[in-house]
Amino acid sequence: MKHKIAILGASGYTGAELIRLISTHPSMSISALSADRKVGMSMENVFPHLRHLMLPKLTKIDNIDFSLIDLVFCALPHATSQKIVKQLPCHVKVVDLSADFRIRDPLLYEKWYGKQHDALDLQERAVYGLTEYYRKDIKKTNLVACTGCNAATGLYPLLPLIEDKVIDTDEIIIDLATGVSGAGRSPSEGIIHSEVSEGFHAYNIAKHRHLAEFDQELTKAANKNVEVTFTPHLLPQNRGILATIYVKGDANKIHQSLEKRYNKEIFVSILPLGEAPATRHVRGSNFVHIGVVPDRRTGRCQIFSTLDNLTKGSSGQAIQNANIMLGIDEAAGLLMAPMFP
Amino acid sequence: MKHKIAILGASGYTGAELIRLISTHPSMSISALSADRKVGMSMENVFPHLRHLMLPKLTKIDNIDFSLIDLVFCALPHATSQKIVKQLPCHVKVVDLSADFRIRDPLLYEKWYGKQHDALDLQERAVYGLTEYYRKDIKKTNLVACTGCNAATGLYPLLPLIEDKVIDTDEIIIDLATGVSGAGRSPSEGIIHSEVSEGFHAYNIAKHRHLAEFDQELTKAANKNVEVTFTPHLLPQNRGILATIYVKGDANKIHQSLEKRYNKEIFVSILPLGEAPATRHVRGSNFVHIGVVPDRRTGRCQIFSTLDNLTKGSSGQAIQNANIMLGIDEAAGLLMAPMFP
Amino acid sequence: MKHKIAILGASGYTGAELIRLISTHPSMSISALSADRKVGMSMENVFPHLRHLMLPKLTKIDNIDFSLIDLVFCALPHATSQKIVKQLPCHVKVVDLSADFRIRDPLLYEKWYGKQHDALDLQERAVYGLTEYYRKDIKKTNLVACTGCNAATGLYPLLPLIEDKVIDTDEIIIDLATGVSGAGRSPSEGIIHSEVSEGFHAYNIAKHRHLAEFDQELTKAANKNVEVTFTPHLLPQNRGILATIYVKGDANKIHQSLEKRYNKEIFVSILPLGEAPATRHVRGSNFVHIGVVPDRRTGRCQIFSTLDNLTKGSSGQAIQNANIMLGIDEAAGLLMAPMFP
Amino acid sequence: MKHKIAILGASGYTGAELIRLISTHPSMSISALSADRKVGMSMENVFPHLRHLMLPKLTKIDNIDFSLIDLVFCALPHATSQKIVKQLPCHVKVVDLSADFRIRDPLLYEKWYGKQHDALDLQERAVYGLTEYYRKDIKKTNLVACTGCNAATGLYPLLPLIEDKVIDTDEIIIDLATGVSGAGRSPSEGIIHSEVSEGFHAYNIAKHRHLAEFDQELTKAANKNVEVTFTPHLLPQNRGILATIYVKGDANKIHQSLEKRYNKEIFVSILPLGEAPATRHVRGSNFVHIGVVPDRRTGRCQIFSTLDNLTKGSSGQAIQNANIMLGIDEAAGLLMAPMFP
Repeated sequence: MKHKIAILGASGYTGAELIRLISTHPSMSISALSADRKVGMSMENVFPHLRHLMLPKLTKIDNIDFSLIDLVFCALPHATSQKIVKQLPCHVKVVDLSADFRIRDPLLYEKWYGKQHDALDLQERAVYGLTEYYRKDIKKTNLVACTGCNAATGLYPLLPLIEDKVIDTDEIIIDLATGVSGAGRSPSEGIIHSEVSEGFHAYNIAKHRHLAEFDQELTKAANKNVEVTFTPHLLPQNRGILATIYVKGDANKIHQSLEKRYNKEIFVSILPLGEAPATRHVRGSNFVHIGVVPDRRTGRCQIFSTLDNLTKGSSGQAIQNANIMLGIDEAAGLLMAPMFP
Repeated sequence: MKHKIAILGASGYTGAELIRLISTHPSMSISALSADRKVGMSMENVFPHLRHLMLPKLTKIDNIDFSLIDLVFCALPHATSQKIVKQLPCHVKVVDLSADFRIRDPLLYEKWYGKQHDALDLQERAVYGLTEYYRKDIKKTNLVACTGCNAATGLYPLLPLIEDKVIDTDEIIIDLATGVSGAGRSPSEGIIHSEVSEGFHAYNIAKHRHLAEFDQELTKAANKNVEVTFTPHLLPQNRGILATIYVKGDANKIHQSLEKRYNKEIFVSILPLGEAPATRHVRGSNFVHIGVVPDRRTGRCQIFSTLDNLTKGSSGQAIQNANIMLGIDEAAGLLMAPMFP
Repeated sequence: MKHKIAILGASGYTGAELIRLISTHPSMSISALSADRKVGMSMENVFPHLRHLMLPKLTKIDNIDFSLIDLVFCALPHATSQKIVKQLPCHVKVVDLSADFRIRDPLLYEKWYGKQHDALDLQERAVYGLTEYYRKDIKKTNLVACTGCNAATGLYPLLPLIEDKVIDTDEIIIDLATGVSGAGRSPSEGIIHSEVSEGFHAYNIAKHRHLAEFDQELTKAANKNVEVTFTPHLLPQNRGILATIYVKGDANKIHQSLEKRYNKEIFVSILPLGEAPATRHVRGSNFVHIGVVPDRRTGRCQIFSTLDNLTKGSSGQAIQNANIMLGIDEAAGLLMAPMFP
Repeated sequence: MKHKIAILGASGYTGAELIRLISTHPSMSISALSADRKVGMSMENVFPHLRHLMLPKLTKIDNIDFSLIDLVFCALPHATSQKIVKQLPCHVKVVDLSADFRIRDPLLYEKWYGKQHDALDLQERAVYGLTEYYRKDIKKTNLVACTGCNAATGLYPLLPLIEDKVIDTDEIIIDLATGVSGAGRSPSEGIIHSEVSEGFHAYNIAKHRHLAEFDQELTKAANKNVEVTFTPHLLPQNRGILATIYVKGDANKIHQSLEKRYNKEIFVSILPLGEAPATRHVRGSNFVHIGVVPDRRTGRCQIFSTLDNLTKGSSGQAIQNANIMLGIDEAAGLLMAPMFP
């Protein structure tokens, strides 16, 4: 018996990625797909690459019979998600891919998202979906808030180093570059091909909302206030995030801390000291590659972390969390190798 | 004294390309720029690559004093253009970059564009802007309708061959691939980076509106009805069109016909027999490269034609026509080499 | 018990793609990997995206103990393959991805490849790897010659139409565009990023070696000599082939012929009449998408066929054939959905 | 009378860019072109985009009659350049685009380039080609060493800030991303399209040779030892460099320092405080765009600097320096607008 899955917001890229991953998952089957603007369309028109699958038509959320559903992936836009999730019946497990339930502190949420939360009680008990850190809580909850894709890319290398106190927490700089699929499928001038290809620029400098997640998780790990510098850039490519993190600390200790923390983790790979990863080598997969390279100045170090924003940064992570919530093998459906070239 | 230029619709890509070319033109200066949705914005915000120029702010068309203007480039959307052009004062020369005045026959216009023309008298006396063929008429008119970028790419190689009767006019197939900048700057799902890059497909198969131009000009050249097969494809690149044209005829005669027709033309280059051009080698320039390669089957031949859709396919062609209308050197401002890589 | 696999030529792209596909295959395990220039290197250095797998080091072919191997994928360069394959022990099944065993007629081989074959007996009895057409022979042979990627893209739509006599076999034009990964991983000026990106051109016009395969298979299907026109172009993208095929025939009959032929085939999808496929929608998968669009001229028709050159065009096809040779489910390991975006 | 120019190493990308720029330069004409591996080839075969120009054939350096040459652009590989330049006759002015004469200190040169210099006397008196800083010396010299493209991108924003003492010279981090054309036209696995496109990674971390230039120029400006952290990344695009520079200092003072320093410079633009530039907006031009954005943490600041590696980062800079050496308008031939999109 397969677990019955509904995907809300199935016409976006994270929706498509969920379907791609579930299509070869051994114990999930898709029972319902919703989309707002594309209601009534068949998935092969919305996403022709999925035409070989027998998928339900896109429907309105109201038309889904949730009594038949075991788990919902909610891939709706920020702010919409909270309104929908609070209406779902209790027996349904929810993995939310939006930003709505990531920030535990209501005031912090309001500061970064500019509005009061509509489902305060859910917000406070939702579990942050950084699987390798919240596994136990994820197992017990029925609401997981997947991390921001940029946040995940930075948190994987930084959390162990802060816990192990091997870096100066006042001097963390996260320089990051991300593929354009992270901006979603809604058309806007900034993401059309002629504006993105053959070019590179920074955006949302010093004010990107994923800073809220960095603040929350790094402060918790350090047990004191941690504020980082964070500069995201837009890459002329579809998938992949690379964070280049500048820290003060000893490269060997940093490398050891990471190796120790992740040596039992399937999806997080620490490269040999001195090697740096590339986004293309995790493309389409649930893997994270992390490298540590000492600076020429003693006591300084560059750390590189890469993952696919649509997979480990979003839909792959969501499946991983759902596997845990459903009590099945955490890696089920997630072991396909990256696609290169 | 420089000629005073107004550009209507200056916030689109053809508008930007006109400004780029005029910025080093020896005898044009920009006096007014209009844009609809971006009125009041400075050009350095709309197009940061033009920030070094001292350009007028974007204004409404109604606010332009056309008594001070010598020539207008009209880079407005199809259907809008005809309404504006008919209101311009008589002394103003007009180079229209839209499709509005390309089709001389009102019925043919209606068939392909789905509406009656709003400026029938202008439509009938506008001169088709394929410079190398309508030079004399362009010199005398005050309204030139620039060609469609795909049409130009196909017409340059085909017109001499039809005039010289060296190909079978019933067996012309134009297979064409174009960069995405041809689709303009208005956001839509089909042109966002994630949908375009790393992919290739055909669109508007057998019904693209540039067929109207092929029909009109090829029929005129043949002095009998000519209908071609035309299949446009969208390339994962910004600029450039390559037409691969399948014809029946003798490759040597075809090559000779083209060499003879274009040996005095600055902007049209015929490659040695057997060589094929590449879009990247005309990028950003006003040049057309044409190659002829015999098929392995006697009596069949592939012809390749390439130009930059924004330059020779649109704004460069517009400047070339304007130069003629203003009585200055036809190549003024247009001799920069292609940008490669 | 898994079948023990060796991959010869594992440092190229088809080698990497084989490993990617086998890594989640239920009944194959990789026992040996060879590479010529990269002997002794670990695969995580040659292909960092495969670092999560426990793969054997790259070795010389001479160092492989073939007595322990069930099946060999031979991903060696053309001309090298024939020398190696003839030395392999009899019990080993061989799937060859090179061009060496595709052409059954020794004279035709010599004509297109410019040399005599080194393993004439093998050449004559090798089975052509177009799975959906040679399934029965593949089941019985121990040497399969995978098709050329371009040939496969054109043969899928053309073979049924020729067999059903619904198109004029004298008037077939195959216009095709392919991603650059088809050119392999050996550096040369023509495939460096600055030469390929933001550009498009035709190559090997009217003389591409895959013509030999078209001639062989189409002539066999027609039971008379068939010569096509074939023009390949290079796309600024890594994966994917799209063939645009111009034929004379009735679009409805053509569409019906294709639907009938492929309605039981898992990997070949016929789109509704009037729709055209895109390379991006088969990326990384073993699927073929075929569309038929009538021309505006009665009796003419455009057919579009797309597949991923590294998957269905090469390594995926190879696995599919190996599955048949090993007597396991033909689709094993091949059902992952395409990766879009 | 035009100045007679020779370009040594004309078959590489900087050679092509020099020719592109000179082709519309009012007072330079190309008299000789050399290339090593492509001797005897016509330029239209080496660079088809230049086919409309009447260029001399590629010849050996030994075959050039330098008595007829006024100025040589030396676009040869590092280490080769020094051997050639020292043999040139005295009357010839030389603009060298290699790294050979950038480092004034012979020991520093040896440290970074791994060998003793072959033309020590020339090395010591060559003028560093950062035009806006060495204008007076450039006017008087006959040997200019153009800067490294990455070095130029970082030096433009940093030099005034160090001179004005508004940043902490111990805490400078230069995170930089560059297009692949910077790696030249010699084929190698790392720059083929399938390896570069749709991917991003850092390289030469903490050991890139342009560090030698940073050390030299920043130390000179500070009048004390300055060592920066420098991390270059490879972008999936052809042209453009963006440096994201992390400094400690007051954003307003930093912005004012830059505005004051560059307000009379044609080619260096300072964006309004809070705005960041994009590589695509300087593409193909000689312009530098610099932006300053305050961090959320007081006293910290991000500075963004972008230029086209082939133009202002190399060949455009070379022309600018040559203009000065020849006593003509510094901006001659360099005012074309960037090409966007």
